[in-house]
Amino acid sequence: MEPKINLWIEKDGEVVLSRWRVRLLEAVGETGSISRAAGEMGISYRRAWEKIHEMEERLGIRLLDTRTGGVGGGGARLTPAACDLIARFHRFDEGMDEEIRRRFEEAFGNS
Amino acid sequence: MEPKINLWIEKDGEVVLSRWRVRLLEAVGETGSISRAAGEMGISYRRAWEKIHEMEERLGIRLLDTRTGGVGGGGARLTPAACDLIARFHRFDEGMDEEIRRRFEEAFGNS
Repeated sequence: MEPKINLWIEKDGEVVLSRWRVRLLEAVGETGSISRAAGEMGISYRRAWEKIHEMEERLGIRLLDTRTGGVGGGGARLTPAACDLIARFHRFDEGMDEEIRRRFEEAFGNS
Repeated sequence: MEPKINLWIEKDGEVVLSRWRVRLLEAVGETGSISRAAGEMGISYRRAWEKIHEMEERLGIRLLDTRTGGVGGGGARLTPAACDLIARFHRFDEGMDEEIRRRFEEAFGNS
């Protein structure tokens, strides 16, 4: 048996940040592109764009700076506000996998 | 904003216990009946029965003692093994809501 956890943050009952959403934002930051980030996450460009747009709407914060066209097509990078949120989410989540493994061992280790 | 958490336990990649599943088992224990437990959980009898049966299959443990017919219809009660699993899950989960609220305040309190 294996313990599992999911952590997320809601605003007005709607998800604004989660492990998955943070990975998506980080993938945009790393690849410089929504479409490459979507590829890394195994989702469509449309779905990636919608999720990011949804977060921006719900948070009332711009998360990406995007530019279109030009040599090599458009690109995207994280805004400082997005970087701040990602860092805060990691602080919130830090060590939680270890915490639940420790708790699981305590509770189920001798079962 | 509000932090949220879900905790569950998998076996061979399949969910065997979760907060929701533990509540379902507890509802059977409290009401003495799968159909009343289903009513409390807002699900159909069929779905409740399937979820419990699924847990029993995946865990390889009998979770309910059931009897059918008789005055007042059939009934169900938790086996000692089910009570033990419920207690262990609560130990695993104990204080986690407070833990994530504390972490959320630390990480996002000044955002």
